[in-house]
This record gives sequence, structure tokens and C-alpha cells, in this order.
Amino acid sequence: MADILSGKEVAQALGEKLKGEVDQLKSRGIVPGLAIVIVGDRPDSMSYIKGAQKKCSEIGIDCRLVQLPEDLSEKEFVSKIHQLNEDRNVHGILVMRPLPAHISEDRVKYEISPLKDVDCFNPANIAKVMSGEEGGFAPCTPSAVMEILDHYGIELGGKRAVIVGRSMVVGRPLAMMMLRRNATLTICHTKTVDLAKETSRAEILVAAAGKARMIKKDMVGSGAVVIDVGINFDENGKMCGDVDFEAVKDVAGKITPVPGGVGSVTSTVLAKHVIRACRMLIDSEA
Amino acid sequence: MADILSGKEVAQALGEKLKGEVDQLKSRGIVPGLAIVIVGDRPDSMSYIKGAQKKCSEIGIDCRLVQLPEDLSEKEFVSKIHQLNEDRNVHGILVMRPLPAHISEDRVKYEISPLKDVDCFNPANIAKVMSGEEGGFAPCTPSAVMEILDHYGIELGGKRAVIVGRSMVVGRPLAMMMLRRNATLTICHTKTVDLAKETSRAEILVAAAGKARMIKKDMVGSGAVVIDVGINFDENGKMCGDVDFEAVKDVAGKITPVPGGVGSVTSTVLAKHVIRACRMLIDSEA
Repeated sequence: MADILSGKEVAQALGEKLKGEVDQLKSRGIVPGLAIVIVGDRPDSMSYIKGAQKKCSEIGIDCRLVQLPEDLSEKEFVSKIHQLNEDRNVHGILVMRPLPAHISEDRVKYEISPLKDVDCFNPANIAKVMSGEEGGFAPCTPSAVMEILDHYGIELGGKRAVIVGRSMVVGRPLAMMMLRRNATLTICHTKTVDLAKETSRAEILVAAAGKARMIKKDMVGSGAVVIDVGINFDENGKMCGDVDFEAVKDVAGKITPVPGGVGSVTSTVLAKHVIRACRMLIDSEA
Repeated sequence: MADILSGKEVAQALGEKLKGEVDQLKSRGIVPGLAIVIVGDRPDSMSYIKGAQKKCSEIGIDCRLVQLPEDLSEKEFVSKIHQLNEDRNVHGILVMRPLPAHISEDRVKYEISPLKDVDCFNPANIAKVMSGEEGGFAPCTPSAVMEILDHYGIELGGKRAVIVGRSMVVGRPLAMMMLRRNATLTICHTKTVDLAKETSRAEILVAAAGKARMIKKDMVGSGAVVIDVGINFDENGKMCGDVDFEAVKDVAGKITPVPGGVGSVTSTVLAKHVIRACRMLIDSEA
């Protein structure tokens, strides 16, 4: 029976540390601020926003919701982003995606200040993730995976890490982040011929394919660390990950549950990024 | 005995195709132009430049050398780049690196127009390589690897590809490019524990570690495609790759030699990128 890697525990420990940092900043008269920008009111986005607002409030970050009408023009959207770039009380900007079709993500992503881009929307930050350059912001979900590994002291150096999934929000950036920590890294996906053969070799296996319970027991090596990034709902409407948890927990060495795993850490990572953006601003003015 | 994947053959075929395209453009009064910017006169850079100039001249591209004094300030350098961004006769800009220490690559890389950035200096293009977005420019060396694979009809989809080396000029961008073509991709490096075990599994093996003849016969699977990106000089001053060619050719299915392999294709890829930049400008004005 595998050890459980509890996202909740990681979020709590990190949250407490961050709260201490915010208290220190507040004693100097500085309140870290996050602006969450949403165009329209997609229910899944609104639900994520509620979680982020709650987490920010717990930690002491000023979280402002900038809700814009669905029929806003691209030009008006960009002008709003520029305004937030200039706003001295806003240290982090999170743009909820997808944007409506008439606003081109490929155009507007360049407009957000890289220094406030706490969820890696601007290509300048994507490039930093790829090159391993310091001072950028990686997307919150792969960063949450790294937080969990670090919290539990799981070393990556020289380990065979296998990531299933190659999205721009998880698989690819996480590959670059794990590579930077010296993992020998394999990326698998829907076109991989013998997936079980690849995943079975993993000392650290990350499931980020977005397919309910696709990672079965016979696909996991004995004692492997299994990180489940998936958030799916099964035929009974029950939330589940990309890993068949009940079966895989008998063979894995350590495993994250769903819910209570990676997803529990992302909003705390978002808060961490806002505080870092705030510090970067202070340092640049020192 | 492996089939030889001849970079010279690839360069010749591609060069002829490009020459045809340039002739067409010239018949419309358009001459594709490349500006190569060098600060100082590093001998290895000057030797690369000579090769690029020769190739451009064969294909019909107007190649201009912008040689700047070693003591040029960063501000003057940036202003020169801006001038080339605006120059309507310049479609591609290649900045020779490394730059002198007083010019920060991390600052100036943002200044080159992404539309003229034919060797992927600007993070906007690095991000496009990572996301697989069309319309950007990948670095010339990994692009040369892809040209060789394509020329010889070597399919990547579902294949196990292993890259040894994780540099920003070859390993990382090539990983993203091969991933986009649906390879199952592994990246190895100096911290990989059992390198031979990983490389032996490769159906397509790319050596980009920069270490003379480090890939030995027992590290290569029977029938594998072996692409050697290394350019090294052995103890006798003889040019050699990262692969022990004489031994590995007996086990590999196909193999690139050094010299006459990947290195023979890069300047032709540079020309290809200049012509594409030229077409992009025409299309944007159409």
C-alpha cells in the first residue's frame, strides 16, 4: 500500500509559510495584490476563481476580480490589461482562459507584463520555463507538482521520470522543469505505441492526459512515485484522476489522490507567485 | 553496415529547391536579404559566417555582414538591431553568439523582430517551438536534423526517440519538434544514471552532447537511426562527432557522418528561414 502524497498537507504547509511572508510585507505597508481577469462567466472558471479568492484571503493577498462583458472588443481587453500592468497595487495578473473567440489569445498574450504574469501566459515566461532561466513564472499546475515532490523530499536527479500528456499547461512545461532538476525525462502521449512499457519504467510517473483512470495497475512499476494531475468525472459523476487509484495504490510506492492531490495545491502556488511578483517589484525599486 | 544519411545530399536537394524559389521572387523584383550581425571577430564565428555567405550567394540571397566593434555599447547594439528590424531589404537577422560580456543577451534578445529572427534568438520564437505554434523560427541546427529525417522519409510518429543533450541550441528545441511529430521522446544528459540502457532503446538516437565519440557501439540498438549533431576535434585534431562512427556504423540502420552530416545542412536551413521570412513579409502586405 503506497504512501499518500497529500496535496492538502502541502497546501497547508506552503500556505502557512506564505502567510508569514505576507504578514512581514504588511508590516512594511505592502499588500500583495492579484487581479483575476475573466471575460464572461464560464461556470468552471468561476468555480476556480472562488477557490483562488478564498486561498488569497486566507494568506492575506488582496484579490480583485475584474469581470468583463462577453462582448468586449480585443482592443478594449488589451487596454484593460495595460491598465493592470500599470496599476501599482496589482502585482499579479491571472487571465482566465479560454477567452471568447473574438479575442485572439495568440495576439493578447504578449500584452501582459511578464513581471505580473503569474500563470505563464506571456511567451516570455514560456521561454524561461524552456530554458530554465530564473525569474520567470511557470504555470501553476506543473509548479504544484514540483511543490509536492519538494515537500515530500522526492529527489529528481538521475531518476527516470515519465510524463503522460504533452499539453502546454502541464506536460511540456513540467518536462522542462523536471529536466532542469536532472531527471532523465520521457514524454508519452496518445501516439505512443506501447504506453504500458514506457510507464512501467518510470521511477516517477506523472499522469496528465485528461483521461479518467487510464493508468492501470499493470502500467506502474513497483514502488514508483505516481503523481496524478487529472481531474475527470466518471460515469457516476464522481471526481477521479487519470490514475486508477484503488488498484495502483497497491503497487506504487507513493501516490497523490484525486481529489486532495495536485489540484489542492494550485491556488496556493498562485498565491506564492503573486508574493514573488510583489517582491520582484520591491527589489526593482530598491 | 548502416546506410549513410548524407547531409551534403540533403543540403544540395534543399538548396536547389530554394534557388528555384528565389528565382521566382526575383522575377517579381524581390531579393531575400539576410543581415548577419557580429560584434568583434571571433574566429569560429567568422568561419561560420563564411559558410553562410557562400550558401546564400549560391541560392541567390543577398547576405550582408554587419560587423560591429567589440567595444560597442549595449544601447548602440540595440539601436543597430532596431535599424535592421526596420530595413525593408533585410528579411532575416542572424546575431552571432556569444556576444561580448557587456552586452546582455537576456536583455537584447527581446529586441530582434520575431518576424526576422531566423535562428530563434527572441523568446517569442522559443515559446513557439515549445508550443508547436506555426509561423515561428526554430534554431537552425535542430531544424537541420528534421530536414535530414524528412529528406530520407524517416517517420517519427510513435517511434522511441532519444536525445542525448539538453542545450537550448539543440536538445530542448529538438525534443519539442520531435514531440510535435508524435515521437515518444526521452531526453538524457550528464546526470542520466544508465545512459547506455536509455540510448539502446532508441529507434531514433540523436547525439547532441558535445563530447567526442561518446556514443559507443554497445549503446546503440540494432537498426537504429543515428543522428550525430556533435562537432568535436579529437586528440589528433581530426574533426569527429559525438558518435564513434566507425564502430557504430556496423550496428546502426542509418547514420549521419561527421563531417558531411547535420553540420552540412544548417546554413541551407538558415537560407530557407530567410526565404520564409521574406514570404511572410510579402503575405503581410498583400
